[in-house]
Amino acid sequence: MSLIHRLTSQSAQFDAELRTLLAYEASEDASIEHACAEILHRIQHEGDTALLDYTQRFDRLAVEQASALEISKEELFAALDSLPADQRKALEQAAERVRRYHEHQRTETWTYTEADGTVLGQQVTPLDRVGLYVPGGKAAYPSSVLMNAIPAKVAGVPELIMVTPTPDGVRNPIVLAAAALGGVDRVFTIGGAQAVGALAYGTDTIPAVDKIVGPGNAYVAAAKRRVFGVVGIDMIAGPSEILIISDGSAPADWVAMDLFSQAEHDELAQAILLCPDADFLDQVEAAIERLLPTMPRADIIRRSLSGRGALIHVRDLDEACRISNHIAPEHLEVSTRNAQDLLGKIRHAGAIFLGPYSSESLGDYCAGPNHVLPTARTARFSSPLGVYDFQKRSSIIQVSESGAQTLGPIAATLAQGEGLYAHAASAQFRLNQS
Amino acid sequence: MSLIHRLTSQSAQFDAELRTLLAYEASEDASIEHACAEILHRIQHEGDTALLDYTQRFDRLAVEQASALEISKEELFAALDSLPADQRKALEQAAERVRRYHEHQRTETWTYTEADGTVLGQQVTPLDRVGLYVPGGKAAYPSSVLMNAIPAKVAGVPELIMVTPTPDGVRNPIVLAAAALGGVDRVFTIGGAQAVGALAYGTDTIPAVDKIVGPGNAYVAAAKRRVFGVVGIDMIAGPSEILIISDGSAPADWVAMDLFSQAEHDELAQAILLCPDADFLDQVEAAIERLLPTMPRADIIRRSLSGRGALIHVRDLDEACRISNHIAPEHLEVSTRNAQDLLGKIRHAGAIFLGPYSSESLGDYCAGPNHVLPTARTARFSSPLGVYDFQKRSSIIQVSESGAQTLGPIAATLAQGEGLYAHAASAQFRLNQS
Repeated sequence: MSLIHRLTSQSAQFDAELRTLLAYEASEDASIEHACAEILHRIQHEGDTALLDYTQRFDRLAVEQASALEISKEELFAALDSLPADQRKALEQAAERVRRYHEHQRTETWTYTEADGTVLGQQVTPLDRVGLYVPGGKAAYPSSVLMNAIPAKVAGVPELIMVTPTPDGVRNPIVLAAAALGGVDRVFTIGGAQAVGALAYGTDTIPAVDKIVGPGNAYVAAAKRRVFGVVGIDMIAGPSEILIISDGSAPADWVAMDLFSQAEHDELAQAILLCPDADFLDQVEAAIERLLPTMPRADIIRRSLSGRGALIHVRDLDEACRISNHIAPEHLEVSTRNAQDLLGKIRHAGAIFLGPYSSESLGDYCAGPNHVLPTARTARFSSPLGVYDFQKRSSIIQVSESGAQTLGPIAATLAQGEGLYAHAASAQFRLNQS
Repeated sequence: MSLIHRLTSQSAQFDAELRTLLAYEASEDASIEHACAEILHRIQHEGDTALLDYTQRFDRLAVEQASALEISKEELFAALDSLPADQRKALEQAAERVRRYHEHQRTETWTYTEADGTVLGQQVTPLDRVGLYVPGGKAAYPSSVLMNAIPAKVAGVPELIMVTPTPDGVRNPIVLAAAALGGVDRVFTIGGAQAVGALAYGTDTIPAVDKIVGPGNAYVAAAKRRVFGVVGIDMIAGPSEILIISDGSAPADWVAMDLFSQAEHDELAQAILLCPDADFLDQVEAAIERLLPTMPRADIIRRSLSGRGALIHVRDLDEACRISNHIAPEHLEVSTRNAQDLLGKIRHAGAIFLGPYSSESLGDYCAGPNHVLPTARTARFSSPLGVYDFQKRSSIIQVSESGAQTLGPIAATLAQGEGLYAHAASAQFRLNQS
């Protein structure tokens, strides 16, 4: 098996090869679907009883009363105090930068008044209560807690409820510290489909929320899909992806390490480099070979790069942008001189990192923008997680007496054309001459 | 069966009665699911051949070549020219008002520059290509064409593809006229799950889109759910709802007709009135009784009101707002003196109609705001269809050399805490001292 695929856009087979490289279908597992349906049903109908049962069964965490599943605010702040000074400071700096960036995203209520006194607009309000799922074990990322919690609090969500499983009762202090910094209001040590169900339907102990966000395993994803409609959900993420457009001007080691930083997530992660300079692609391949043995997660990186990674020789940077728009990557690094000149040619990407110093890892943790991004080509139609995901809008329509005289005949004519006579009459009743 | 339920919030059973009244569960029909799965599979793998086959089978429309399924722009404008003058003028006035309102919703690209030269922001771009589903037959509403097409075009979507079934080849000229006015780029006479599949996967004739919007029957809804992820979709709408908060100051006939205008949609539509004045509730009930026989769609209205409608006596307007927030109605009419004073107490509603002259029907057709609104309590977490549904955002991250020195150590510390060593190395490579 080669270290990483080498493709060239000039090959007659390129389109087919690219299609094969990108192919990824989220599998639907019938046994997971079946288990989730049963878990959700029991949570909805038996509440805390079922929740305690599943938590004991799946997390080996036995408590007498569901209230014992809550972690107090004091414990969150104690976890923050327990961190090494450098870790605490890094977390605080990241939280501060993420907050500052997201404050630019707040949408405000707006209205305008027409000449006849009619007022139109939209009232923008935060969601009442949001649930944040945080995975337990190895996938417990404090940075994810910040990235999900901070936009919700900037939006003004009054109650943010976090759930996170603690198998065998083992708690992750960095995750709890991040919850304290992120402004999470309450934390419960529950996980899996049962936690999603408890947040969606509510139990005596867990308050029902209006939306559930945050990453999770296949059970969590399946449960979120099933409760969608009862509550809102964020996107269901696929494997993480990076695409790098390079003109060969940055050090090959930097580019190789940026590919690694995606590939180390898991073996399905996808890392692709597009470059018109074949020599530079050789240099990057050599850097991969040289640097790989030094990486603690070398095995995962190797499997990811050999399975789904590629170094692609392109004709020029314009072609690189066209291919990038087709792929609509989650992370796009434009590692070129005058990178901002290419920005206008980029139509679809979750996040665009411009210039050689903008490594994806800076964005993942502390640049400020959100690291929850659309994957699997969904950047064609969706956006990074943001404050706007925790606000909603209500149209405002205040028609004046005079406005009703102008609008009434229009509405009545159109309503009659659609055979909706009560609609027409309702408009006509407001006409002064009638 | 009573004409309409009468409830009072002072009853001990009120909470339970309200729960029963609101209960509605979208049923999942296994035979529809199965049929949709097969149709989508065939469209994906056989393209136009399957599309022609289904169109002949379900719409009794036989054409030799798939290209014959397209309606030319000339035909759309001919349909517009064929309308009676008053209907054409009403449609044009509505389109103009909807366009003017939605222009307020456009989101613009923004960036800010930090002291060290790092640039952060979001690039906002329109979707490339959008599909608009328009039902055929009786549910073909030209107003829906305008409400879906205009926000997409205001967002700057370059290609808007409409599909609408024409059973037995019968075309609806008002719908085609609305497509011309709404700026629809191409129209195909296909419908059902096969049209959704064609838009999602593309065929030789139908271009693949990035998002599918617009209402449809159970097959269309099931197909949209299934292709979600391949493309974006708008919300799946439940039965339409109106909630009216009244202080008894508007004419009882107006309120009764507004309830009718919701109830006439279908028997599952829900019309509820909240009022602290019991006498006024009696007057509205009398008006319902008197006006109902005059309505062309009296049968549907009667079934809707007796099944899911209610006149509810509340303690005061504050309680009415609390109940309204619980229901989170699609349409909320605040039919009171100084209605805007209550606006701050309304947290969840698709559209808020303030004051006695703001009938829902004016909003449905021509006030300007969108009539595609969240139903079934989803206004707790979602918003009216808008320009923002046809735009997406990409984070912009341009870290300066100096910025990388500040951000690098933060990212490296946090990455090491998460065990992601390539992330840490990628940040550290950008440090000048390293």
